[in-house]
Amino acid sequence: MADPRAVTDRKTDAKRRHDTELRGFASDNYAGVHPEVLEALALANGGHQVAYGEDQYTEHLQRVIRSHFGPSAEAFPVFNGTGANVVALQAVTDRWGAVIAAETAHIHVDEGGAPERVGGLKLLTVPTEDGKLTPELIDRQAYGWEDEHRAMPQVVSITQNTELGTVYTPDEVRAICEHAHERGMLVHLDGARIANAAASLDVPMRAFTYAVGVDILSLGATKNGAMFGEAVVVLNPDAVRAMKHLRKLSMQLASKMRFVSVQFEALLARDLWLRNARHANTMAQRLAAGVREVDGVEILYPVQANAVFARLPHDVSERLQKRYRFYFWDEAAGVVRWMCSFDTAEEDVDGFLTALREEMGR
Amino acid sequence: MADPRAVTDRKTDAKRRHDTELRGFASDNYAGVHPEVLEALALANGGHQVAYGEDQYTEHLQRVIRSHFGPSAEAFPVFNGTGANVVALQAVTDRWGAVIAAETAHIHVDEGGAPERVGGLKLLTVPTEDGKLTPELIDRQAYGWEDEHRAMPQVVSITQNTELGTVYTPDEVRAICEHAHERGMLVHLDGARIANAAASLDVPMRAFTYAVGVDILSLGATKNGAMFGEAVVVLNPDAVRAMKHLRKLSMQLASKMRFVSVQFEALLARDLWLRNARHANTMAQRLAAGVREVDGVEILYPVQANAVFARLPHDVSERLQKRYRFYFWDEAAGVVRWMCSFDTAEEDVDGFLTALREEMGR
Amino acid sequence: MADPRAVTDRKTDAKRRHDTELRGFASDNYAGVHPEVLEALALANGGHQVAYGEDQYTEHLQRVIRSHFGPSAEAFPVFNGTGANVVALQAVTDRWGAVIAAETAHIHVDEGGAPERVGGLKLLTVPTEDGKLTPELIDRQAYGWEDEHRAMPQVVSITQNTELGTVYTPDEVRAICEHAHERGMLVHLDGARIANAAASLDVPMRAFTYAVGVDILSLGATKNGAMFGEAVVVLNPDAVRAMKHLRKLSMQLASKMRFVSVQFEALLARDLWLRNARHANTMAQRLAAGVREVDGVEILYPVQANAVFARLPHDVSERLQKRYRFYFWDEAAGVVRWMCSFDTAEEDVDGFLTALREEMGR
Amino acid sequence: MADPRAVTDRKTDAKRRHDTELRGFASDNYAGVHPEVLEALALANGGHQVAYGEDQYTEHLQRVIRSHFGPSAEAFPVFNGTGANVVALQAVTDRWGAVIAAETAHIHVDEGGAPERVGGLKLLTVPTEDGKLTPELIDRQAYGWEDEHRAMPQVVSITQNTELGTVYTPDEVRAICEHAHERGMLVHLDGARIANAAASLDVPMRAFTYAVGVDILSLGATKNGAMFGEAVVVLNPDAVRAMKHLRKLSMQLASKMRFVSVQFEALLARDLWLRNARHANTMAQRLAAGVREVDGVEILYPVQANAVFARLPHDVSERLQKRYRFYFWDEAAGVVRWMCSFDTAEEDVDGFLTALREEMGR
Repeated sequence: MADPRAVTDRKTDAKRRHDTELRGFASDNYAGVHPEVLEALALANGGHQVAYGEDQYTEHLQRVIRSHFGPSAEAFPVFNGTGANVVALQAVTDRWGAVIAAETAHIHVDEGGAPERVGGLKLLTVPTEDGKLTPELIDRQAYGWEDEHRAMPQVVSITQNTELGTVYTPDEVRAICEHAHERGMLVHLDGARIANAAASLDVPMRAFTYAVGVDILSLGATKNGAMFGEAVVVLNPDAVRAMKHLRKLSMQLASKMRFVSVQFEALLARDLWLRNARHANTMAQRLAAGVREVDGVEILYPVQANAVFARLPHDVSERLQKRYRFYFWDEAAGVVRWMCSFDTAEEDVDGFLTALREEMGR
Repeated sequence: MADPRAVTDRKTDAKRRHDTELRGFASDNYAGVHPEVLEALALANGGHQVAYGEDQYTEHLQRVIRSHFGPSAEAFPVFNGTGANVVALQAVTDRWGAVIAAETAHIHVDEGGAPERVGGLKLLTVPTEDGKLTPELIDRQAYGWEDEHRAMPQVVSITQNTELGTVYTPDEVRAICEHAHERGMLVHLDGARIANAAASLDVPMRAFTYAVGVDILSLGATKNGAMFGEAVVVLNPDAVRAMKHLRKLSMQLASKMRFVSVQFEALLARDLWLRNARHANTMAQRLAAGVREVDGVEILYPVQANAVFARLPHDVSERLQKRYRFYFWDEAAGVVRWMCSFDTAEEDVDGFLTALREEMGR
Repeated sequence: MADPRAVTDRKTDAKRRHDTELRGFASDNYAGVHPEVLEALALANGGHQVAYGEDQYTEHLQRVIRSHFGPSAEAFPVFNGTGANVVALQAVTDRWGAVIAAETAHIHVDEGGAPERVGGLKLLTVPTEDGKLTPELIDRQAYGWEDEHRAMPQVVSITQNTELGTVYTPDEVRAICEHAHERGMLVHLDGARIANAAASLDVPMRAFTYAVGVDILSLGATKNGAMFGEAVVVLNPDAVRAMKHLRKLSMQLASKMRFVSVQFEALLARDLWLRNARHANTMAQRLAAGVREVDGVEILYPVQANAVFARLPHDVSERLQKRYRFYFWDEAAGVVRWMCSFDTAEEDVDGFLTALREEMGR
Repeated sequence: MADPRAVTDRKTDAKRRHDTELRGFASDNYAGVHPEVLEALALANGGHQVAYGEDQYTEHLQRVIRSHFGPSAEAFPVFNGTGANVVALQAVTDRWGAVIAAETAHIHVDEGGAPERVGGLKLLTVPTEDGKLTPELIDRQAYGWEDEHRAMPQVVSITQNTELGTVYTPDEVRAICEHAHERGMLVHLDGARIANAAASLDVPMRAFTYAVGVDILSLGATKNGAMFGEAVVVLNPDAVRAMKHLRKLSMQLASKMRFVSVQFEALLARDLWLRNARHANTMAQRLAAGVREVDGVEILYPVQANAVFARLPHDVSERLQKRYRFYFWDEAAGVVRWMCSFDTAEEDVDGFLTALREEMGR
């Protein structure tokens, strides 16, 4: 066979059907694939590789992962973030276990009940100010381990960065881990946007995971420029068993896994993950700075990653949505969310700010 | 951004780690991605597309699917075959439903219990000669609908082609559908290798699905040359509801779905699906023809698709496995499975036959 | 065989092991069985009756149930309250459904995660003042039916009387039912203590169930003087299917069901249910009246049924618990719960009040 | 309150609705409650006892259980046999576990899919001659522990006596236990009719459970003369954890548990369990002996407990069913099942044999 990398010379019966120059602020998963990731996919093609994870790319991935997450880390590539979370949470709970999480946690509000339905997991949620749990907030649900009438709290799940665009400091995560461990609970970190958090804090990812006691994490790639694929990363191997069985029975085992693993390699081997995250964060800062100068638009929550939450008049939002795609976060309260991604251009931000000013001015 | 299709000019931090000329007979998912599919992935890149299936590629996919599966067909792209099967089977059962399947069915023996654990599905299995159900075999489990002590048989699931490499004729599927429908049951077809079956029968895929009464199918792509992705295709829309909810809660909803849908387009828009399947089938015929000339090796089951099952001395198999990858199917019985794929070359087959003769001759 | 009712003449190898004169205020299920219920159990004994619900007692029960809950009501006896709730909620949800409930609901806090684990149910909870939902509170979770990322709200579950001893008026339930039905949702009523609510309101049970639009209810018997057994009562038969299958697969199908059904008959044929509930409620009023005269003890929530919640000094509670059994409700807040039951005697209440005064006075 | 044992002097609004002299051969759970058990229920009534298993009857039950099942045994009373089985099997499997069982096992054919739906359990079944597994039969499913595509065989479940009325000898169970343990699997015994097996073998129940390596069992009471209630008995405490949590989340936790435990005491404190079982077995022998003298009726399987399976002309069965209740076991094959119970009278058997002869003679 010819070199599969030479794709530009090839035909395909598929046709391009979209405007590759159109970008909005709806979600970081509206973006496509970073070209370096696409190149990696082509590199991994050709020949036969053992399916279901015994390929050379997945083998190498373990080295890459250990360089980021410490010597005991092991990655289990999966398909998507919900899959990563539900596999990870099953791994650190018994059939009778419950998960303490923020009321805004993706696992609670955005996964269609998969944790409950697929994993049989009970979620014990706590309202928060800014999407972040604290030891004190955890204590609102951390009790009753001996009482069989209550689902047993066995794991605390935090999201980094949070669904509200806020970022835990390493010390904050450490305090949560110590608090949880003292009570016999483990800690899961939903890292769908972990790269943005590391870029925001300007620390390695291990600084707020392995180094401070997180036991297991969902490592995001899709929102960081990959085509598909996330990974469960086990940091505390004593806490889990039979991960590969859990991944399979949760329907998250990719047959041609080399194509998940090589994307992680493209992102994590050097600094693509960080370049992508920094860019998205920078664009969010540019956006926030511009928004702050617009009278009548209020920014909610600290802008610490790639999300900007704002409150503005409902009719303005609606007119603006006709020009740029984005979502209401809480429509009744007039709150919207604007997301930046690895491919957001400065012109996108500036154009959006101009549109915002125009619509506010009507 | 530059044209994302120009990947050959780009660098990536990932490295090629495998021999792209090495191929074996272990599984059709050891193969990589067909170059035309890879090209399609690049085409779909760039710009923003609505996530979770409201992109232009998924929209177009519906037209492609209808051209193959009739005017009422609707495709729900998912990640993998287990996911497709479990979503599809949940769609056509109630909480109290059971699935009648062959004892060799992938859903029973190769999905880690996902149908039971994720879907709460009870499987009622029947031994078969060759992996194929018949109305008579179905009747061994099709009874007791009013008896709450028994899980209620609500769907018959068949695999086309079967796990044993055999192919149902359209009439055979029609008989199953009529039998099932008369008893108030629906019919699911696990089409992980549906293209190979169509190529074998030399009929359109609709001839043994939509045209003969199949209600819902799992449409394979990965084993047909895709990188990842399958689809649940609803043929009988009256039989299902809330498919998108079922897909999400089963953790099978891809965020950047355009990259699943465009692969289907590359395969199905014209004839890549058929070229790939025909090639794999032809290679299996070449392999079977060669094997038949080797004394002491017995071919089991009709070779109707891309699989060859054979019985040979155990030590020969073991020596041969050191030269070419393949699996024992029933090690105690000395039965092995040799799979051909879209990228199996004539030289691969011929080299394997030479090796087989050599090892048999020792 | 001799008359099985003549049990007093019989021997048994079992021995009485408890003080039949000792009663406390811990829970209405610390009480035993009302003698008239025990007598009914003996009546139903002897001879053979079809198992699993086709006996003559269960057949007759339907008439009794219809006399209380309207002409379309049908009862499905089960073992316990959690079983009744989880069967009922499964009956009125799809696999993708969610249940809106008060944060204090028994299904959320006291069932060990059974709704999630057995039923795959997602609970969407709302904080309340007094354990009672309202249309406005329901709206905090009643949205997003088309969004597959969110579990679909399909049923509102209320508890009557509530876990905090408060009682919905018929008009309050009617408003909830209308609100839910307008939004395509059904209404479940957890009636573990429904008799106490009816006694409190001095209306028939149908007045706040069938008459105002409740679709399905869990009918309590155990806390009302039965030995074991509750029932799912379907009020809106159009809303459910295959109830007997759901009951069986939920492991709530009693083989010798006549002994569940005859207990309901003993309670509901005339007025034992009401006599028992009125007595318990009256004892709670007597207790509350006495408590109100004790300085330093604050009663929380209106005392509308058989529960009294109070706040008092922690050390007093602890000393008092050595004399009478009862539970902390919120130990950190110094809140305790005192329950009265069908067999609570005036002397029990008066003795307890004396003890409370003594301990407060130390 | 008056002595609750004096029930014969009491009124109840319930009415006797059945003929206490009518008995058939349909099932041992068509029978009612043994008078000594009913007497025990009255004994345990009155006063308050801690709910959910911390009562004095459940405490004493542990002593009784240890006298039968060895010093490490612990009983967890539940409601019914399906509940006992599903709680027990969850206790000895991980989320990824599978259960090897005979194709005729109650857990596979008669529990409405509860093991799969409630417990997420995968059943791996084996056809048998007579309902009994052997090490060789177990090996047909005992493999592939490292293969995540296969549900992991973690427990062998046998039924004693079997659903076909046959009985394992202690040596047969020992061989199964040794075989399973050598392969890292545990052994569960479904003892819904364990008393009949012990009576048949004329050995203590421990002889074929604790003494030969069974890890956990479902201890039947209902079919042995109880009103309701079974128990999970843990024989190997190292194999399980958090049993009380599993029981609760499986909805099998009785609030007024004293009334389950005291029934076990009535049965097991001395010999009621054995008297009842022996009587039922003797009646089955009487029935079998009579049947063997009827030309044209063939007895299937050895009659070792309280069941007689027979093949006879279909029309004879149908006419006979109008005179005595019993079930077809395999209607197409003309096979019926006749069950004897603790209250089957000699006259019942003799009358049935007369009827059989009459109907055969027509």
